[in-house]
Amino acid sequence: MKALRFENGNLRLVNTEIPARSSEAVVRVKLAGICKTDLEIIRGYAGFSGTIGHEFVGVVEDSPERSQIGCRVVGKINVGCGQCRLCEQKDARHCLNRTVLGIHNRDGAFAEFLSLPPGNLLAVPQSIADRQAVFTEPLAAGCEILDQVVIDRADRVAVIGDGRLGQLISRVIATTGCDPLLIGKHPEKLKLANQAGIRVISLGEIDPSSRFDFVIEASGSPQGLTLALALVRPRGTIILKSTYHGKTELETSRIVVDEISIIGSRCGRFETALNLLESGKVKVEPLISREFSLDEWELAMAEAKRPESLKVLFRF
Amino acid sequence: MKALRFENGNLRLVNTEIPARSSEAVVRVKLAGICKTDLEIIRGYAGFSGTIGHEFVGVVEDSPERSQIGCRVVGKINVGCGQCRLCEQKDARHCLNRTVLGIHNRDGAFAEFLSLPPGNLLAVPQSIADRQAVFTEPLAAGCEILDQVVIDRADRVAVIGDGRLGQLISRVIATTGCDPLLIGKHPEKLKLANQAGIRVISLGEIDPSSRFDFVIEASGSPQGLTLALALVRPRGTIILKSTYHGKTELETSRIVVDEISIIGSRCGRFETALNLLESGKVKVEPLISREFSLDEWELAMAEAKRPESLKVLFRF
Repeated sequence: MKALRFENGNLRLVNTEIPARSSEAVVRVKLAGICKTDLEIIRGYAGFSGTIGHEFVGVVEDSPERSQIGCRVVGKINVGCGQCRLCEQKDARHCLNRTVLGIHNRDGAFAEFLSLPPGNLLAVPQSIADRQAVFTEPLAAGCEILDQVVIDRADRVAVIGDGRLGQLISRVIATTGCDPLLIGKHPEKLKLANQAGIRVISLGEIDPSSRFDFVIEASGSPQGLTLALALVRPRGTIILKSTYHGKTELETSRIVVDEISIIGSRCGRFETALNLLESGKVKVEPLISREFSLDEWELAMAEAKRPESLKVLFRF
Repeated sequence: MKALRFENGNLRLVNTEIPARSSEAVVRVKLAGICKTDLEIIRGYAGFSGTIGHEFVGVVEDSPERSQIGCRVVGKINVGCGQCRLCEQKDARHCLNRTVLGIHNRDGAFAEFLSLPPGNLLAVPQSIADRQAVFTEPLAAGCEILDQVVIDRADRVAVIGDGRLGQLISRVIATTGCDPLLIGKHPEKLKLANQAGIRVISLGEIDPSSRFDFVIEASGSPQGLTLALALVRPRGTIILKSTYHGKTELETSRIVVDEISIIGSRCGRFETALNLLESGKVKVEPLISREFSLDEWELAMAEAKRPESLKVLFRF
């Protein structure tokens, strides 16, 4: 099968074996999405070597759970060891010995087939199209915020970053009834969010005296955290969503003096995201920029890197 | 009166007017403690100019609230504007327009007299000696942690920093019934904590695979936060206590991937600290290194800067 692999610092399309683990299901990938994390991985983040990609929708080709075969599924990306305290509490997302699809010690979704344990797969309701289902993973990451903090209708919330993740997060946050402000620097992306009913402002237009109860950092750049610290009110909360390669310089005394909370936030529950897609409360298809075949991977990656692009998909 | 003032980058003892604000009380200082924040202020932190010092016990010399006159008191260091939403919620500690004794726009406690609003003063119960009462402010800062997070008997808690603040914090945390581990690098200071029943370990002896539910950073150095990030478990909490001049480099992806919470923590409730001193549950006098007169300020500051010293006091 064809797979897009990152090895020895190089990304290339190769022919490789279809994954075969007797305890796991094999999924034929239908659509896969390129995420900022994929772009960071090929810059060296996370030290990963193997097939990249972790956002997908596909069909179960084979599985030790026979009833899954033929089902259209999405897949939770963290595979726990199954034996530690966290796994016993069903929190494979934080198991210290986990593998992560296309991110850590496990080949990913930019391939014709991938392998995951049957328990990681969730059937996609028929009313959800492939082009919606492929957003389940990043949408779940947005939903995770609402599992971590209680956001009230009256709360002042800012989302920094008008990219793929910031777009999804602002739509998820808006479902609470509060009126989030999306801060970005790409006019077209801000316009798109605005068409979805989100208040938007460009980076240069922020009133520096604004203060927010919650600031969600999803810009994917170290400057985003500095801005978040400037905008959060005393005793307010910053939610950190961006992962990137390298270190960030931080004025920690502001955190202490104003008793700021910073909460790291990563993967969320797929069930919540599928419910949200099914309800129609969050529309994701307008966020798709373009589709490519895996053979066109160089074009696809270049498109995903363009500041103006949003979600780029591989169609198999 | 004599006052130790930091002006134009220089610290010096000067003769100056006794503070006189008609709406405020005047307190004759009996004992005042040197804090790491004072040492940071004279390195340029917070851009303060004026009389330094914010830990004290004294006697009310004059006050618009006549009943206070002659009382032995300690004083809350934050003075709010009295008009904003935070002040209405009685949270002068976070008022954006507050002054702070010896730290921000208000002359401090390293002087024969200081001035604070009557509402900032708390009478010290007779059973608490001056040498205990002078610890009220830093002890309250330790108690603040227990106002911010719920620490359970079974929680694994590490305190980084065997200095003044780390010593107080580990004693406060121990009152919850959990068994905190104090991490430090000064054998004498670790010994002192151990004599108070605290588990201790030197920096070089930490098992790098240890993971804690809570890590409290009170080392006063940027490396402390890096160590805290290495020691906290996935989904664990770091409490940041140190304020210092300058920026810290941080690997933020660890915060995101492992969903770490970082909570800034500063001033606490004086009432809680006075109760703790009165109960005898926390013994503070063993933490006093030496006393000096204000005339000996150069010796006192030098002593406070010595890595081996703990609390250095000015006696008036």
